[in-house]
Amino acid sequence: MKQVTLKQIAETLNLSVSTVSKALKDYPDVSKKTKRLVKETVELLNYKPNAFAVNLRTKESKTIGLIIPEVVHHFFSSVIKGIIAKAEKKGYLVIILQSNESYELEKKQLDLLSSKRVDGILISLANGTADFKHLNDLILHELPLVMFDKIAKIVNCSKVIINDRKAAYTATKYLIDSGCKRIAHFRGPLLPQNSIDRFLGYKNALIEHGISYDPSLVYILKDMSYDEGVHFAGQLLKDHNDVDGIFINTDLVAIGAITEFNRIGVKVPEDISIVGFSNWFMSSVISPTLTTIDQPGYEMGKEAFKLLYKEIKRRKENLPIKFKTVELETKLIKRASTRN
Amino acid sequence: MKQVTLKQIAETLNLSVSTVSKALKDYPDVSKKTKRLVKETVELLNYKPNAFAVNLRTKESKTIGLIIPEVVHHFFSSVIKGIIAKAEKKGYLVIILQSNESYELEKKQLDLLSSKRVDGILISLANGTADFKHLNDLILHELPLVMFDKIAKIVNCSKVIINDRKAAYTATKYLIDSGCKRIAHFRGPLLPQNSIDRFLGYKNALIEHGISYDPSLVYILKDMSYDEGVHFAGQLLKDHNDVDGIFINTDLVAIGAITEFNRIGVKVPEDISIVGFSNWFMSSVISPTLTTIDQPGYEMGKEAFKLLYKEIKRRKENLPIKFKTVELETKLIKRASTRN
Repeated sequence: MKQVTLKQIAETLNLSVSTVSKALKDYPDVSKKTKRLVKETVELLNYKPNAFAVNLRTKESKTIGLIIPEVVHHFFSSVIKGIIAKAEKKGYLVIILQSNESYELEKKQLDLLSSKRVDGILISLANGTADFKHLNDLILHELPLVMFDKIAKIVNCSKVIINDRKAAYTATKYLIDSGCKRIAHFRGPLLPQNSIDRFLGYKNALIEHGISYDPSLVYILKDMSYDEGVHFAGQLLKDHNDVDGIFINTDLVAIGAITEFNRIGVKVPEDISIVGFSNWFMSSVISPTLTTIDQPGYEMGKEAFKLLYKEIKRRKENLPIKFKTVELETKLIKRASTRN
Repeated sequence: MKQVTLKQIAETLNLSVSTVSKALKDYPDVSKKTKRLVKETVELLNYKPNAFAVNLRTKESKTIGLIIPEVVHHFFSSVIKGIIAKAEKKGYLVIILQSNESYELEKKQLDLLSSKRVDGILISLANGTADFKHLNDLILHELPLVMFDKIAKIVNCSKVIINDRKAAYTATKYLIDSGCKRIAHFRGPLLPQNSIDRFLGYKNALIEHGISYDPSLVYILKDMSYDEGVHFAGQLLKDHNDVDGIFINTDLVAIGAITEFNRIGVKVPEDISIVGFSNWFMSSVISPTLTTIDQPGYEMGKEAFKLLYKEIKRRKENLPIKFKTVELETKLIKRASTRN
């Protein structure tokens, strides 16, 4: 872009650079006429103050980074929408990177963002992330960091979460209350805290309702795709023909399972009831519609930015920082994939 | 973030700032021992060269802006994914803004991005955009700009598009070939070029196959939502009980229409056949599955970045710029919402 400089404006008007600068800042020692002239010229030449120079002075970039495992994903795209809506209102721009659930990529991206001197970072961890040094290093260097959804309990920073264990307990209890006695679980990968917590919620609900926990009914998903739902639905029928309910870690997988059951003639919910997790829009339009846990993505994005913004401001003013964990409410959405 | 400066490193080692700087740049007049010492200290203190200072020197921010009408949207989130994947490989970061289909917001965001001195901008226009001065101003100031999907033909810049007219013709012809004789069209808003072109494709297919064009069969969508699909499906039945096919501007609306027809007992495709547009993932899992036009979002994102990158490089080297329009292939996906 051809950059119009203050100097060029000054030359155009046959004024000194300092007069032009003062005129733009509305200093009292510059005449009204000169100010008007400068402002008109600025508009005419489409002059923009140099944002990066401003950054050097204030040490602020007014830019934050966001690292998210996957963009084409109903829940995460809702989070992104919440973050950019809130950030824009406060004058912040958001750089978005996708980690593809890879720890290596996540580490590189954190490094990149911090070398770009963003004012803060929002992150939802990759499934592959088991070591947290890359996060602790940032915190040590006082770069504001907020985790959301897929967090590490052990990392000391602000967080926005839901109570995954409680929500999974509610989902499983609903299957039990509707008459299911052999309930399988398609769980997420082993590492992420949220899949651990959802698994524990499932297990606790069984035990507290006098149903013995059977590890062979738990299937571990890798990429939590639609195809995995199709695959494990078939596998489950081969392994256990007595299952009458499934609690599935995420809606997309549950939709795969429903589609497969529809295809092979297993009736949902008469033969097998299904509860998903997340409340993707799709879940309300498939047949049968999917009972699920609503997870407020847009709200989560807004809250995460709010926490980050507060931390950025307090650090700037050298005020003490207190990390905070915000827990958002979830709710059970009863639909047609379960019996009343 | 507590920023470690070159000066602090120099003081720690009791060296001059220029020696430290030279050591980091691997100058020959600094001893190997000093270089090693500096490098170790840099690592220990987690020193990061100031990215914004680098920007001032090279006049590059290695950051591009992306303005998109809506993030929670299967097609657009696929485009975003394609853009950030490609950009990251070339060392560029992507700032994402959502225009909410608003011309006013789009204008403000373009201004914001250009004042932030991004190296280039990718944009898909808001439905509300009828005036293109904000875009032409950028081009006039030689800021690289590439439009994709929702473009303005009249604006002189590089573009990535599909042939909407041809794709809509194919969709409508498929309805005709399958026996439909009274075909309605749920079209997009009046302004965007892609909804104009899809409408024209529909109209031409009718005329060229001896079916007279009836304007009362064309319904204009506003926000292209699922709810509009539900609404206009009901409206259409009230207005015209002889319709046997609908070509719908976008899948989400078509899914709303199918759901409504399922609810009230209109059989798809026996009573009314439906063809959508875009090939949202959801279209393959609803019942009946939706015949649609596949629109390659991920590819579109990658191509758009490639064009932008080329322009950024050529401008940097003061080479002449030739704007290019890349047209990506679409294809008809035959599913169960139409008769064979």
